[in-house]
Amino acid sequence: MIVRSQPSFQDIIFTVHGSILPRIARRLAAIAVVSVIAILAAQAHPGIFARISTIPFTLIGIALSIFMSFRNNACYARWWEGRQLWGELIISARSFARETSLLPDEDRRALLHSICGFACGLTARLRGEDEIAAIAPWVDIGPATKSPNVTNLVLDRMGRRLLELKQTGVITPIHYAVVAEDMRSFGKVQGACERISTTPVPFAYSLLLHRTALIFCVMLPFALAGSLDWWTLLPVLLTAYTFFGLDALGHELEDPFGVEPNCLPLYAMKRTIERDMLSLLGEEDLPPPLEPHKSVLS
Amino acid sequence: MIVRSQPSFQDIIFTVHGSILPRIARRLAAIAVVSVIAILAAQAHPGIFARISTIPFTLIGIALSIFMSFRNNACYARWWEGRQLWGELIISARSFARETSLLPDEDRRALLHSICGFACGLTARLRGEDEIAAIAPWVDIGPATKSPNVTNLVLDRMGRRLLELKQTGVITPIHYAVVAEDMRSFGKVQGACERISTTPVPFAYSLLLHRTALIFCVMLPFALAGSLDWWTLLPVLLTAYTFFGLDALGHELEDPFGVEPNCLPLYAMKRTIERDMLSLLGEEDLPPPLEPHKSVLS
Amino acid sequence: MIVRSQPSFQDIIFTVHGSILPRIARRLAAIAVVSVIAILAAQAHPGIFARISTIPFTLIGIALSIFMSFRNNACYARWWEGRQLWGELIISARSFARETSLLPDEDRRALLHSICGFACGLTARLRGEDEIAAIAPWVDIGPATKSPNVTNLVLDRMGRRLLELKQTGVITPIHYAVVAEDMRSFGKVQGACERISTTPVPFAYSLLLHRTALIFCVMLPFALAGSLDWWTLLPVLLTAYTFFGLDALGHELEDPFGVEPNCLPLYAMKRTIERDMLSLLGEEDLPPPLEPHKSVLS
Amino acid sequence: MIVRSQPSFQDIIFTVHGSILPRIARRLAAIAVVSVIAILAAQAHPGIFARISTIPFTLIGIALSIFMSFRNNACYARWWEGRQLWGELIISARSFARETSLLPDEDRRALLHSICGFACGLTARLRGEDEIAAIAPWVDIGPATKSPNVTNLVLDRMGRRLLELKQTGVITPIHYAVVAEDMRSFGKVQGACERISTTPVPFAYSLLLHRTALIFCVMLPFALAGSLDWWTLLPVLLTAYTFFGLDALGHELEDPFGVEPNCLPLYAMKRTIERDMLSLLGEEDLPPPLEPHKSVLS
Amino acid sequence: MIVRSQPSFQDIIFTVHGSILPRIARRLAAIAVVSVIAILAAQAHPGIFARISTIPFTLIGIALSIFMSFRNNACYARWWEGRQLWGELIISARSFARETSLLPDEDRRALLHSICGFACGLTARLRGEDEIAAIAPWVDIGPATKSPNVTNLVLDRMGRRLLELKQTGVITPIHYAVVAEDMRSFGKVQGACERISTTPVPFAYSLLLHRTALIFCVMLPFALAGSLDWWTLLPVLLTAYTFFGLDALGHELEDPFGVEPNCLPLYAMKRTIERDMLSLLGEEDLPPPLEPHKSVLS
Repeated sequence: MIVRSQPSFQDIIFTVHGSILPRIARRLAAIAVVSVIAILAAQAHPGIFARISTIPFTLIGIALSIFMSFRNNACYARWWEGRQLWGELIISARSFARETSLLPDEDRRALLHSICGFACGLTARLRGEDEIAAIAPWVDIGPATKSPNVTNLVLDRMGRRLLELKQTGVITPIHYAVVAEDMRSFGKVQGACERISTTPVPFAYSLLLHRTALIFCVMLPFALAGSLDWWTLLPVLLTAYTFFGLDALGHELEDPFGVEPNCLPLYAMKRTIERDMLSLLGEEDLPPPLEPHKSVLS
Repeated sequence: MIVRSQPSFQDIIFTVHGSILPRIARRLAAIAVVSVIAILAAQAHPGIFARISTIPFTLIGIALSIFMSFRNNACYARWWEGRQLWGELIISARSFARETSLLPDEDRRALLHSICGFACGLTARLRGEDEIAAIAPWVDIGPATKSPNVTNLVLDRMGRRLLELKQTGVITPIHYAVVAEDMRSFGKVQGACERISTTPVPFAYSLLLHRTALIFCVMLPFALAGSLDWWTLLPVLLTAYTFFGLDALGHELEDPFGVEPNCLPLYAMKRTIERDMLSLLGEEDLPPPLEPHKSVLS
Repeated sequence: MIVRSQPSFQDIIFTVHGSILPRIARRLAAIAVVSVIAILAAQAHPGIFARISTIPFTLIGIALSIFMSFRNNACYARWWEGRQLWGELIISARSFARETSLLPDEDRRALLHSICGFACGLTARLRGEDEIAAIAPWVDIGPATKSPNVTNLVLDRMGRRLLELKQTGVITPIHYAVVAEDMRSFGKVQGACERISTTPVPFAYSLLLHRTALIFCVMLPFALAGSLDWWTLLPVLLTAYTFFGLDALGHELEDPFGVEPNCLPLYAMKRTIERDMLSLLGEEDLPPPLEPHKSVLS
Repeated sequence: MIVRSQPSFQDIIFTVHGSILPRIARRLAAIAVVSVIAILAAQAHPGIFARISTIPFTLIGIALSIFMSFRNNACYARWWEGRQLWGELIISARSFARETSLLPDEDRRALLHSICGFACGLTARLRGEDEIAAIAPWVDIGPATKSPNVTNLVLDRMGRRLLELKQTGVITPIHYAVVAEDMRSFGKVQGACERISTTPVPFAYSLLLHRTALIFCVMLPFALAGSLDWWTLLPVLLTAYTFFGLDALGHELEDPFGVEPNCLPLYAMKRTIERDMLSLLGEEDLPPPLEPHKSVLS
Repeated sequence: MIVRSQPSFQDIIFTVHGSILPRIARRLAAIAVVSVIAILAAQAHPGIFARISTIPFTLIGIALSIFMSFRNNACYARWWEGRQLWGELIISARSFARETSLLPDEDRRALLHSICGFACGLTARLRGEDEIAAIAPWVDIGPATKSPNVTNLVLDRMGRRLLELKQTGVITPIHYAVVAEDMRSFGKVQGACERISTTPVPFAYSLLLHRTALIFCVMLPFALAGSLDWWTLLPVLLTAYTFFGLDALGHELEDPFGVEPNCLPLYAMKRTIERDMLSLLGEEDLPPPLEPHKSVLS
């Protein structure tokens, strides 16, 4: 995630890093080439081009804007829901720690370490890394590596431990019910993150919008070359920059758990949970919070 | 569901499978024929066509885009709600398994198998298949086949079993209340899926938008033929492709539980539940996860 | 509710039933007459009409589309919320039946019959029919007909019965708390349905949009007649059809509990609840589900 | 609130009451004067005005429509949330009455009267009337008039009474927990109503949109006068009516608890609660429901 | 927060304070300079400029409006969610006070003071002030200043105190569960506020929209100068004012916890909580509510 929110004037002119520009540079270049061809053709055969009406392009362009805004809305909503889920994870972790503060020290330590392990495992799972290795520093999950969902196994063990604490009378049944709500919340966060991660926006939407945007931007210079001559390049490139840029940005937000600059900072949020849990366990030697690298927090 | 999220350049040009193109090919061809007629007519009687203003078409076209975007929003929201409901089913199944982990083995096995039966029955019910046959491998529902809702019957039996466990003291009343929340969640998922499945977007919306889009695309070539000549085909077909495509796609998402390429992968999600439940029961010989066939997960 | 979701080609051309066309036919005819007057006037005084710019009409037309889309969104959201509430009623009824499955037979029968009476009373209340007569087959509410809200009285009696069952020890306090959540849900459904039913979209919105749409459609032919001659009729009628149609449809969805073709099928959903409750009571002689009449489910 | 939902044809032409027209009449008159000036100027200096392009006005007008629709959405959402909150108040009041139906008569009467007092106090608070006087007929709050929030004090006394009932064993702890949820709901309704009432839509939005709309409507006649002559008045006034009307309506809905015609009928809803509570207490002599006065329910 | 909601006519013309004007004045001046250059150039070389079509500008302008409206929606939603969270804090604080009204005086006083400390700490944390100093007047957090999250520590101590009260039998386990829900709500408010505060709208969105808006406004005068001459300034400045203004306003709402005029009045809401808590503790000497300074409540 890029931690700056408002671009300064210099940013507007010069920023490339964090911008969507590098990802669409090749497509912009192709459109520029097409524009030059259109301009040269218009200079050679002015009669034909003068007759081309720009009105249908206005119509298609506005329709395209409306549909692209719809897709961007959907992608942004996924990104924001992803952030809300991780926020809920942080909230529930703190609540869990608060509710268990009078448990025997050892039990509590094991449970809060399990939460750290759960957060590490979820991060690894969503980013396609090795779940077992990520969990190992916090929880000893033993040789049960055949499970298709090791992160859920961590949660399962926590739940079993809590049930045992209830059966041995360490926590009352009603207190168990209160704590179970946090457990439910952890499970919900994992399930919902997996849902976002495995279910892309319907492919046919992306394909339809890509195709229309590409054909539109290829056709636009032919419509404008007759009247604008070399000036054609400006509105064509500005339009292409906006459409391709929003399209590429929507794609980046569609999977909010990736490692691209605009994705969510899972590592930093995982570290926040670790610091919160260790601090509530009374430890003073906390791992440092993650710092943004070139304004990007991963 | 198509598991690819971002089309590559080759996809944009060549992909047909997963695209909405095959479903609207006939309508596009019809519009092309109408366009050719309009062009020939314009060449024969240039005087008449030169006078046709394209402005009303911009107006109608933009209005149509706005209303079509509204319908697409509604259809996409149904699709995404369907996915969220199945996500909740997965989450609640795991939570249920966690909460029952200290039950006697046989009771727990019967309950988790019932969840698998419930997921299979719901899949069959939503896809118009044989519910009883789908449930049979997991639960023996006996000869009670007169019930109008066999899937709900599975849930009802689970609930009755839990109440008996409570009455015999195997689980405490408060623990029962915690588990009852998962049961409520299962019931909610079924009811909400049935709601989406049986309640289409108001027919008059679809009809109104279909009619307006069709008349618009039939009239458009007559407005452009006067000035664009044979180039008329390009903007007309691009417009028709976008409008008909979004319309067809909206229709595909409207019933998210169908078997078309962009529908939700109920079979794969059902299998995820089966694998999770069996793995949490300690079994190691799990059925394999469903793999996408030609990028489509069913 | 019209049970077909996607119009076929024949539907697009010929369907009248279920379409919004009959409701707006008179207004469309009026606009056609105005258009003819405009065309004849333009033929008589071509000089004046040639000067009329169509640009302000594009502006007003697009603004109108945006505002009408906003009202349609609000109306559709009411319709869908109404459907969700009835879905919740079905879900909670099943959940209630599940939670009470170990009650003494007579008590359970009385409670589930009360749910049927509640659903019947709510249907009658929302459709302006006789609540007491609708409830009578299921619950004997006695001569207490002075109550301003008989449907709520059914719920109140159920609640009182449950409290008595708790006081006599038939159900434990915690089980009572679980069941009370379903009772709360029933009350919420009734209150929210009454809210939608008694609170229309602000009258000034409907009036403002009606007025603007009408004036716009009356003025449009005068702007186009100069250049389009008799062709004026086509875009004018298409525009009027779209605007008046969406307006009439929005109005039909605004009160989702009415008896017009696009309203919600309260009778059919009430029957679903009756069938579910009777089936869960073990009865085999269920009333048949409601079938759509000419594709309309009421 | 205006209780009619769909304007008839006569309404569309003649209705003034309930319409937004009176509130914007002065602004419309000013725009008409400006238009006449523009027309006369165009007749005097036709050369200058013929050159003015209307295209930038289309651009600004559409942008303005989009942004105004955004503000209207926000205002309508506030109005509807206000209505939902009062609906929740009605629902929770009935639920509270149901849950307390086996309490000793005197205790129950005091509690339900407190709910009436709470509803009256909240109405007075939101409409800037005397809270203490409004509450007095139902609850004796004593000389504790120094409290900054008398309505919350009513709730606080109810909560204290319930706690005492729990401590003396009249209600069980678990039953207390069930009833506490209704109490929480009352508190939530008050807090959320205060939030809507004290937090307007950001002032800068209203100011920006007002300014743009005003400047736009003042400039529009100068753009059209050159080509439309006296006809200029029609599109200019229609545009101004739509923009100013939506702006004024948005403002009316922004504070849904006011006393303007399109605001929510707090008095009528308060009366509904009073009637429900008294009827559930077994009283037969209920205050009459509020009737709309000239179609307006206050 | 600016406490006026509807600008008067004088406001529309003259208001600067609270307006977004000062923040965008420099950019508007730059656009004015560019416009003058364009006009002079058009007067010098009328031939070139006459050929520039304004149609592509309509297209880009509308697309920009749609995308900017999308970003404004997202920013407004953040602002409103921030307000809802603080509203929930107020609601939960009152509910907590109600639920603890029969506790021993000293315990209750300490707990309600902790809520005030929590509100003060959260305010300081969100506004980048000294948390420890803000909390000190209400709670003695001791020398535990190494904690990375002092505000959460206040909550943690409250939770621990409640657990002790439960263990010593001062509150029953079920009552503890009721109060724990308010504690959970406090934790949720803090976590969600931190989420909004640390996660800006994706930087690439802001950058893309800034760039497009800037280039568009720089290019617009060249398109209009040919036909509008010195009148060019009016539509160009109006467009720039609207686009830059909405952009700047969106940025101000993006971080709703800041200290700019349109941000949320955290200090005033914190004071409301203090007054409510002290008043419910029976104190009569309350700190005065915050008054707006030049219409701005901070």
